[in-house]
Amino acid sequence: MPEVDVYMVEGRTRDQKRGPIKDITQSAVRNFGVEPATVLVQIIESAKENKAKGGVLFSERPAG
Amino acid sequence: MPEVDVYMVEGRTRDQKRGPIKDITQSAVRNFGVEPATVLVQIIESAKENKAKGGVLFSERPAG
Amino acid sequence: MPEVDVYMVEGRTRDQKRGPIKDITQSAVRNFGVEPATVLVQIIESAKENKAKGGVLFSERPAG
Amino acid sequence: MPEVDVYMVEGRTRDQKRGPIKDITQSAVRNFGVEPATVLVQIIESAKENKAKGGVLFSERPAG
Amino acid sequence: MPEVDVYMVEGRTRDQKRGPIKDITQSAVRNFGVEPATVLVQIIESAKENKAKGGVLFSERPAG
Amino acid sequence: MPEVDVYMVEGRTRDQKRGPIKDITQSAVRNFGVEPATVLVQIIESAKENKAKGGVLFSERPAG
Repeated sequence: MPEVDVYMVEGRTRDQKRGPIKDITQSAVRNFGVEPATVLVQIIESAKENKAKGGVLFSERPAG
Repeated sequence: MPEVDVYMVEGRTRDQKRGPIKDITQSAVRNFGVEPATVLVQIIESAKENKAKGGVLFSERPAG
Repeated sequence: MPEVDVYMVEGRTRDQKRGPIKDITQSAVRNFGVEPATVLVQIIESAKENKAKGGVLFSERPAG
Repeated sequence: MPEVDVYMVEGRTRDQKRGPIKDITQSAVRNFGVEPATVLVQIIESAKENKAKGGVLFSERPAG
Repeated sequence: MPEVDVYMVEGRTRDQKRGPIKDITQSAVRNFGVEPATVLVQIIESAKENKAKGGVLFSERPAG
Repeated sequence: MPEVDVYMVEGRTRDQKRGPIKDITQSAVRNFGVEPATVLVQIIESAKENKAKGGVLFSERPAG
């Protein structure tokens, strides 16, 4: 604990994804006083045509 | 806000998916009085063999 | 199917919540050709102090 | 009802996934007294490089 | 692993909830060959007025 | 984007929860190059009797 789900559109590199995974884990350990092994982080990626902001698909808008 | 997750099995066309994305966004704006740009909708698709109703996989039953 | 999760902060009235529930259900029926009884919608509310945008808690910012 | 989401990394066979789907459905029927057809189970798989425990990606650790 | 989320409306007793938690854990151990301590189950309850099937709130329909 | 859901049992103070919210937001900005205002973090708390590890409820085990 905690379990952390990070939702984002596809397209980040493996290295870009490592950053938040590491940061989130360290933050949980530091703030909650838990063992690192109890912290679970997963990234759930959507295709850009499956996600929209303001009704506009990410496949049809600039990144952001 | 809000953030809306739509779970369904694979197989809908891009156009079929646009409908709910647009409808959900408009409904949130109308009912909650928020700016469209704050409404986030994502569709999370499962393979038909990863989802079941009544214990029967969607890959082994008629659509519904 | 589909199952739709709507995440938002607390504070909307029951009537404000009925709107999206009805709209989402109708949209799924119309766009996916499913029976209404297969459409499941749930609203998952967070306390304003448990949700943040840009690192600022909703309990410490204007509504939006 | 209930709707059950099972999160795990990729790599289980179809038969390994059938087991929990069947068991969860039966358990809900037995414990909650609901009709089997109201029980929905889905498996949401992550790539091993999108999930980490203790900050270590599943793609870089032994299974477990 | 796995992490299992069980969504349901409020109203089950603590004992009714123990059943699926135990069953899901045992099923994961048996089917996936994981250690029990890696299996995480959580129940996420909604108020009956925050959940609907076929557009009808659970607060306004018979249980099921 | 991203949207980050942090699942944990009840019992942390408001200040303990601020830490990860701030850290996650900063990490997303730094690693993904997004505007802070696009980063959404929410904490979803469970009662200790609604969450279990290894089949043992958090209400019946030591913290961790």
